[in-house]
Amino acid sequence: MSTLPAELHRELADLLGEGRNWLTDPGERLAYAYDNSRRESLPDAVALPVARGQVQALVRACFRHRVPVIARGRGTNTTGASVPVQGGVVVSFERMDRILEVRPGDRCAVVEPGVLNGDLQAILQGHGLFWPPDPTSAAFSTIGGNLACNAGGPRAVKYGASRDNVLALTAVTGTGDLIQCGSATTKGATGYDLQRLLVGSEGTLALIVEATLKLAPLPPQRRVVRALYRDVASAAQAVARLMAQPVTPSMLEFMDGDCVRLARDVGGAELPADAGALLMIEADGDIQTLPHAIEALMRVAEGEGLVSLDDAADEAARERLWAARKALSPALRTLAPGKINEDVVVPVSRIPQLVQGVRDLASEFALPIVSFGHAGNGNLHVNILFDPADSGQNGRAQAALARVFALTLSLGGTLSGEHGIGLAKREFMPQAIDPATLALMRQVKAAFDPAGILNPGKLLP
Amino acid sequence: MSTLPAELHRELADLLGEGRNWLTDPGERLAYAYDNSRRESLPDAVALPVARGQVQALVRACFRHRVPVIARGRGTNTTGASVPVQGGVVVSFERMDRILEVRPGDRCAVVEPGVLNGDLQAILQGHGLFWPPDPTSAAFSTIGGNLACNAGGPRAVKYGASRDNVLALTAVTGTGDLIQCGSATTKGATGYDLQRLLVGSEGTLALIVEATLKLAPLPPQRRVVRALYRDVASAAQAVARLMAQPVTPSMLEFMDGDCVRLARDVGGAELPADAGALLMIEADGDIQTLPHAIEALMRVAEGEGLVSLDDAADEAARERLWAARKALSPALRTLAPGKINEDVVVPVSRIPQLVQGVRDLASEFALPIVSFGHAGNGNLHVNILFDPADSGQNGRAQAALARVFALTLSLGGTLSGEHGIGLAKREFMPQAIDPATLALMRQVKAAFDPAGILNPGKLLP
Repeated sequence: MSTLPAELHRELADLLGEGRNWLTDPGERLAYAYDNSRRESLPDAVALPVARGQVQALVRACFRHRVPVIARGRGTNTTGASVPVQGGVVVSFERMDRILEVRPGDRCAVVEPGVLNGDLQAILQGHGLFWPPDPTSAAFSTIGGNLACNAGGPRAVKYGASRDNVLALTAVTGTGDLIQCGSATTKGATGYDLQRLLVGSEGTLALIVEATLKLAPLPPQRRVVRALYRDVASAAQAVARLMAQPVTPSMLEFMDGDCVRLARDVGGAELPADAGALLMIEADGDIQTLPHAIEALMRVAEGEGLVSLDDAADEAARERLWAARKALSPALRTLAPGKINEDVVVPVSRIPQLVQGVRDLASEFALPIVSFGHAGNGNLHVNILFDPADSGQNGRAQAALARVFALTLSLGGTLSGEHGIGLAKREFMPQAIDPATLALMRQVKAAFDPAGILNPGKLLP
Repeated sequence: MSTLPAELHRELADLLGEGRNWLTDPGERLAYAYDNSRRESLPDAVALPVARGQVQALVRACFRHRVPVIARGRGTNTTGASVPVQGGVVVSFERMDRILEVRPGDRCAVVEPGVLNGDLQAILQGHGLFWPPDPTSAAFSTIGGNLACNAGGPRAVKYGASRDNVLALTAVTGTGDLIQCGSATTKGATGYDLQRLLVGSEGTLALIVEATLKLAPLPPQRRVVRALYRDVASAAQAVARLMAQPVTPSMLEFMDGDCVRLARDVGGAELPADAGALLMIEADGDIQTLPHAIEALMRVAEGEGLVSLDDAADEAARERLWAARKALSPALRTLAPGKINEDVVVPVSRIPQLVQGVRDLASEFALPIVSFGHAGNGNLHVNILFDPADSGQNGRAQAALARVFALTLSLGGTLSGEHGIGLAKREFMPQAIDPATLALMRQVKAAFDPAGILNPGKLLP
């Protein structure tokens, strides 16, 4: 039994099939109560639709009863965006997971929302293609979730994030209407671009039931260069130089001095003692062009403050170079049991001020705070390390977080590059977005979802 | 004197300065009555604001009086999007034409809407950067107009159109509210993406008063290859092959057999008699990588139906190769005094069906119809040639146009790739967009412009 209105429960149980695609047992519901934010709230029921018609009928019924509807992929997001904080019906797309079409000649694929990013990539590889978004969760996160959160990843520096790689979406609005936005073409000037508006809207505007994705040709080869710099300022200047020349790196990852130290001292990575910042610079291409691309990037990486520049000639060397980056996450865990992992973005030229400002906050709040991430986009993961069981540290971590956001905004940046807002950053939205624009966002939300039933309590304050 | 309500006229004359930035003389208004669509309708007054505060005050006043407000760049669009069909106040941005900032390290520029695309490119060149949209009108069209219409051009195949190259917009809604959308960062997942929604909305949602543009590094060199094919099908297959490999061409232009014939027989271009389709394939890069890129493209251009493949080794050869394309437009004019130049888009794999379908329509309606354009995006300019003074030809041209759109939609394409909808294609919107999605677009419009004063009669039927 669910705690939904009896009439709605009966209608949806009939629609989806009680106990099969309609779950109301508390034990079963629990699995859909949380996401990777570690927040938790039990839904009243869980629907596992197998077709868009079911999604439409479900939303229409919930619209009539004013019951919340929360779209869900695999819950890998870190902001609480898929936690049903006001109860209602979680719509998990795990059974709408078909790859409907791969059209290599048109460089597009048509998928249902529940397809895993990694599964799609495996199929696309056979066609010499890939879908650019590569969040860390790719192996177990869904395309629908990636789109809902505008997922990015390291490759975004060259290929863009989810929003840049979608051609068309079919979705169900908050009134149960089926809308079709965009077309399977890489250009379009036919009315309002609703598909890019849906990307990053975290299920608050509509439920995506089908996506036509823009694909890119898989480069046959990749090569990476590791550049160590004396300090963050030198590394940031190199990032600006790298982004201002014509060979766009396929990844451009950054670690601050604390991260370098941790990777060396705790993670055991081979890194010199005088390195105050690290860049991983990757290029992709074919066997003819790649050496020239790497040469061009190495030339530009050189400059004031460079400590060393290592080119990985083969796969083993490549693994060795990435080892420092990979040693980082486990090393972070040894410092403190808890971390707040933010993903603020600033214009590339402001990276030094952001990193220095974060170091100052670490001193002020007496907590380790380290920064690393996607430097080519100015998208840094600022990690505040603390012990959640220690109420003093907990309070200081929250206070430091607010200051990280204020600092980011003062540098012309924004709250999130790829994780989204969800619950975690909702209260900070009024600092990032002015009242008139926020009011307009609420009006836009009302146009899609007049009853406010889609993922209530998220994104907009 | 204008025909506006006297109170509104006085308020706006005071705000802008009668005769200076507020024009009501019919002769002066006439210059703002038409655009490149050759449609015409006299506005009641013309405002030439110099600051966003004036734009806000003007829209607020017009909102109170329910008087139309029509944003205008230089009127180069071909769809009637800037023709004030319901009178009202044309807001021409010609005096808000400052380049406010060029930030090479952040690969962005901040501009007022009245800056000419070409003027911006000239400034950017000095920084080794460019803004990708390159419509034919670039020398005399504005950034604001480019954004309003989602202008593209041949470079879009590699670099995207206007929508893909904007980071943030400041705009005035239909209630006179100033909204700030996006940030000067290349990644963002902070709330709804309103800036890309504004791009292509043709002034029906808000008036853009400032734009932060995403810039790309200027490639030091370009080289072009001309490929001639026996027929359109062979050329289209080559396009699909070219787009499915990792070296994305910086331009990939197409001419059908009729265009090739015209360029040769009327335009005097040196082209063999057995060429049934032509591709111009351009790559950009640096001196090291470009030869390999061209080699890769030439390798892929080869295949079934190739007649000849010419590589331009120097600038003179490059000019010679482009001559056929340049001979086309003047040659078209010799065929008929009038033309309808459409810019439909289809998935790349459907180009052969589109071109064949268009040839069939040319026979059926006994009018020359030729196709050329941006093949890498499937964006073809279908030109229906006729004598507007001949009512029979006129009627057949209009009938053929409706069939071109129906054909395009049946192939999974859409009405416009880069020209937009405006007045010209508004009546066809219900064929391209289903009723639920159109209704939602109207709701979105109402969220931005509740009184419906912004560019009424355009885009949405």
